[in-house]
Amino acid sequence: MRDVSVIGIGQTPIGEHWEKGIRHLAYEAVAAAMKDAGIERADAMYVGNMLSGEVSGQSHLGALIADFAGMRGIEAVKVEAACASAAAAFRQAYIGVASGLQDIVIAVGVEKMTDDVGSTVTTGLAGAADADYEVIHGISFVALNALLMRRYMYEYNLEREAFAGFAVNAHANGVNNPNAMFRKAISKEAFVRSGVVADPISLLDASPMGDGAAAVILCPTKQAQEFTDNAIRVAGSAIATDSLSVHDRHDPLKLQAAESSSKKAYRQAGVGPEDIDFLELHDAFTIMSALSLEANGFAERGKGTWPAQDGEIGPTGKIPVTTMGGLKARGHPVGATGLYQIVEAIQQLRHEAGKNQVANARLGMTQNIGGSGATIITHIFERMN
Amino acid sequence: MRDVSVIGIGQTPIGEHWEKGIRHLAYEAVAAAMKDAGIERADAMYVGNMLSGEVSGQSHLGALIADFAGMRGIEAVKVEAACASAAAAFRQAYIGVASGLQDIVIAVGVEKMTDDVGSTVTTGLAGAADADYEVIHGISFVALNALLMRRYMYEYNLEREAFAGFAVNAHANGVNNPNAMFRKAISKEAFVRSGVVADPISLLDASPMGDGAAAVILCPTKQAQEFTDNAIRVAGSAIATDSLSVHDRHDPLKLQAAESSSKKAYRQAGVGPEDIDFLELHDAFTIMSALSLEANGFAERGKGTWPAQDGEIGPTGKIPVTTMGGLKARGHPVGATGLYQIVEAIQQLRHEAGKNQVANARLGMTQNIGGSGATIITHIFERMN
Repeated sequence: MRDVSVIGIGQTPIGEHWEKGIRHLAYEAVAAAMKDAGIERADAMYVGNMLSGEVSGQSHLGALIADFAGMRGIEAVKVEAACASAAAAFRQAYIGVASGLQDIVIAVGVEKMTDDVGSTVTTGLAGAADADYEVIHGISFVALNALLMRRYMYEYNLEREAFAGFAVNAHANGVNNPNAMFRKAISKEAFVRSGVVADPISLLDASPMGDGAAAVILCPTKQAQEFTDNAIRVAGSAIATDSLSVHDRHDPLKLQAAESSSKKAYRQAGVGPEDIDFLELHDAFTIMSALSLEANGFAERGKGTWPAQDGEIGPTGKIPVTTMGGLKARGHPVGATGLYQIVEAIQQLRHEAGKNQVANARLGMTQNIGGSGATIITHIFERMN
Repeated sequence: MRDVSVIGIGQTPIGEHWEKGIRHLAYEAVAAAMKDAGIERADAMYVGNMLSGEVSGQSHLGALIADFAGMRGIEAVKVEAACASAAAAFRQAYIGVASGLQDIVIAVGVEKMTDDVGSTVTTGLAGAADADYEVIHGISFVALNALLMRRYMYEYNLEREAFAGFAVNAHANGVNNPNAMFRKAISKEAFVRSGVVADPISLLDASPMGDGAAAVILCPTKQAQEFTDNAIRVAGSAIATDSLSVHDRHDPLKLQAAESSSKKAYRQAGVGPEDIDFLELHDAFTIMSALSLEANGFAERGKGTWPAQDGEIGPTGKIPVTTMGGLKARGHPVGATGLYQIVEAIQQLRHEAGKNQVANARLGMTQNIGGSGATIITHIFERMN
């Protein structure tokens, strides 16, 4: 297997892009990444997307986006793993380059959610859960996370404000990210006051949906210096799965697939959580942030909110998370999110993260979650110079 | 890169499986393939599917099917390329094994179309075409193919019955396939008489939708003999794309992506069309069969119907096609079809195709088409002993 590096990144701002369709958003991210890498063509493209069929009546994004980006004819397919679709697309791009079959590969994640007619987005998102055993009872995706959060608060005797730090940190970081959907800081008081969406999840626990696209260019590490002197190496890559339905898990408060995939990624990279300089975690809801810190070895069971309460998750903290705003403030265009995380990790490792730069960042980790933890994809990236 | 072989196959009959959901169909095919290969676990699973989100409200099939098949935790994602989704899943499985990253990999294609409520299947299938520039004008998928067929008949001065041989051959072969949806022979006269669906496409030009799943197990060729003495080698594998919309092509009657991907596959296998013993082509409509024979080098431009008119496409003919009934008679559960084609090719190469056996078959080719030719995936398989 060949060693793989990222040589280009691109992204669109996240928001309500009423004037743009899926193809335009994807094109903007792809074109920016290609310009960044200095390439004009690729061997293959992997498209991460969850909802285009349900929301926009458009499947078959591989061929569509390859053509619209000026590369008609190349190998191109869509990869889907619910909200983990973009990291899944990145993973396939990684395997394609590692295999020796493809040299220059594009991974792009794109989601257009504001085309929603009726409730297709809510219905579509529910498809990340088990349609036959969860959704059929009327539970929505936020409600599943509310059940997890309520159980967690019960088990560990916590109040809602224990989770405030995650949202406050995300919004503070989003202020400095020109691509973030929300660029406004929030206070702990605002978090506590914010209206309940699905008890105990309030508006400020939950990430917003939006439209956006993010893309990266991968190539063999050996060839990377032909294109750039700031290539970032993929040091670890792993996917693990779990049952779709939360009720089927032995321990619903343990993200087993996070633990499994991060262990594999740590092993491949030859590092442990203590070596990671920052973590782009999947803060779709604050409860997911707490569970992620625990499953990945950054906090003990039941203490996943402690780093947030103790101020350890900011850019200068012990384990900076969601350094560019995370899903909460940067926004969560579901099938694109995993590549936003990766693009932001590359920005940090290139030391191009502006006011949110994590000092001397050399090792960054991204973790993209599909469903209530049923697909979890972990990547570790390494600065090489 | 490692050489890759297929060591197990499984499939469900295609039909209206009212009593089974997506997970059950997929499980049956996967379990049969695992039993056939003599394995109990795999490193990864790639799921081909097009419509589960739109029709069944269920996305996230990777984790769902891996868990339901008793392999909770393994790497699993869905791959989508419209009606070419299953061959796209096979291709990713092939790359996974070839890369050295995964040893035992499952590719499964599954589609459940009879859960259709309202017209979600017709709407969903339209998503294989360009939603913004084709579908918006009200054109359906069959109508797009009708435009192609009409143009072809005009260009080459043909009547509808020129296409009869494809349907007659498919139905004759379907009679002997216990998994086929239609096991009834049809006459040329019945074809000519059959009612028009979208002029000039009649009912007997068009493949039927259905529910079904097909699966294969792949592993490195070097390890294949540990499992079986009839492993079939993947000699060639290629994807090419084209514009989604037919009107964007310089020559709408040329399947450019078929030509590109078959040329790549031929080159990889070191063979030409004259070496291929049979071709599982994508006969969603008879016009696609004619265009496929031309693009793949089995007929000259404008003469794609000749092999069918001259009786050359039967199991004892010069170039047998759709040997187990094809999409027309075996059925076309869209996101599963590409793996049905591959399973049937393996049956032929193992010399297990019963009454439809192509004598001394050593090299078989499969070609799976997404949309009106926008994604075309070609594989060549080789018997090794």
